[in-house]
Amino acid sequence: MRLTLTKDTQLCVSLAARPGNTGTRLQNFLYRATGADLVYKAFAPTDLAQAVAGIRGLPIRGAAVSMPYKSDVIPMLDHVAPSAARIGAVNTIVNDAGVLTGHNTDVTAVQALVAGLGVPRAATVCVTGSGGMARAIVSGLHDSGFTSVTVAARTEATGRPLAERHGCAWSPVPVAAELLVNATPVGMEPDQDGLPFTPAQVDTAGYVLESVAYPLETRLVRLARQQGTPTVDGFQVTVLQSVEQFTLYTGIVPGAEIITAAREFVLSRA
Amino acid sequence: MRLTLTKDTQLCVSLAARPGNTGTRLQNFLYRATGADLVYKAFAPTDLAQAVAGIRGLPIRGAAVSMPYKSDVIPMLDHVAPSAARIGAVNTIVNDAGVLTGHNTDVTAVQALVAGLGVPRAATVCVTGSGGMARAIVSGLHDSGFTSVTVAARTEATGRPLAERHGCAWSPVPVAAELLVNATPVGMEPDQDGLPFTPAQVDTAGYVLESVAYPLETRLVRLARQQGTPTVDGFQVTVLQSVEQFTLYTGIVPGAEIITAAREFVLSRA
Repeated sequence: MRLTLTKDTQLCVSLAARPGNTGTRLQNFLYRATGADLVYKAFAPTDLAQAVAGIRGLPIRGAAVSMPYKSDVIPMLDHVAPSAARIGAVNTIVNDAGVLTGHNTDVTAVQALVAGLGVPRAATVCVTGSGGMARAIVSGLHDSGFTSVTVAARTEATGRPLAERHGCAWSPVPVAAELLVNATPVGMEPDQDGLPFTPAQVDTAGYVLESVAYPLETRLVRLARQQGTPTVDGFQVTVLQSVEQFTLYTGIVPGAEIITAAREFVLSRA
Repeated sequence: MRLTLTKDTQLCVSLAARPGNTGTRLQNFLYRATGADLVYKAFAPTDLAQAVAGIRGLPIRGAAVSMPYKSDVIPMLDHVAPSAARIGAVNTIVNDAGVLTGHNTDVTAVQALVAGLGVPRAATVCVTGSGGMARAIVSGLHDSGFTSVTVAARTEATGRPLAERHGCAWSPVPVAAELLVNATPVGMEPDQDGLPFTPAQVDTAGYVLESVAYPLETRLVRLARQQGTPTVDGFQVTVLQSVEQFTLYTGIVPGAEIITAAREFVLSRA
């Protein structure tokens, strides 16, 4: 995309082994739409510690952190927000005059989206998976006051500790629940026929949250929407966590219109 | 200026205590004009070593280095080009897969511009000053084969060693010569009436090279041009040294038309 750049423009970056274009397009769109004098550039670091030194020393205003750096980066920071510390994963760094603070906007975005669905806190929840996204979601649900959560993960060695850490049940297979959350890669391109829950479980669910962003409509999302079930798709999670990064960098909370326009812009040439 | 940026775009930066907009505008213009997929962003580092670590670790393709970092940066590099090492000043860093090489395009630009004036190597030369730009110019003239150079510098403690290092004469005051070179700040805004040589010396000179870039036409340049003396102004030095940085980053040698257009672009809103 086209943007304006002067000597006073601040830089934000992303650190990822395999950068995509979504962050570059979304952030630069938000900067332009709100008049924030920043520019966003994706990097695939050759050395994480040196990259973080560069954030301090150049200085760079903020950084999105993706796989595989979300945990490794923590000892290099000065502060870590409690929600990020609890899951041991940072996806955002903010540089305030050389003081680096780690945040996790996957957690806060999922919390906001579940609240937006209107799910009661007493609802039963089943979260599939025990990787990074599952940790973020289970921790976020726990912090939001959900008390009846089952972690469904084939791998007991990771699934059971994750469940116990947040007072959840563990199950080796998905269980029926009012809110179904997919935090596995099941359904992700090229596995587009994958379904992380049984059709019957999707049938009886009251709410669905998908974390897979590509394809935009996974089989889980398609089935749920066909039944009129209130559903959050993975791209909404991707967009909102990036918008929350933008707010951390700039202090600006963009309105719904700007967020919708940003989403459309990213999709327009996705 | 407006530019296009994707995840594959490489970043070049500048490191300066007080960044100007010239580099940002000139480099980004050249990238756009030639289709090079780079973007240029100026930085005022809070910590030089950490900034250089960031060049390696993010990684960043190249960096312009300005005052006061041109000497301090040398021990942080893997290699230094001979012409930069001889004057102990690097104004350009190129990052080839983590190997950082320092260059000095002030030297090479002045060499090219003097060659372009058609000054015979046997011509007498007087260079005023003994600071960083004087060191670059005297060393460059020496490397180009000029044998009759006088370093005119009030301060004997810096002027005489600079002269002796390159087999030049030293004089506390400017002397008449076929090529007059100003490497002092005399004539720079706000000292626009300053003249680093006597009017008689300007009168009898065959060629003039000015290193002061602002104002675009110093009193020295104006007097010389009024007499039809072949003259290089400081802005030409600024532009060419930046073009040579561009060539080091990209391998592209831009044609005269692009250089002229870049110069006009920078001046259009200077």
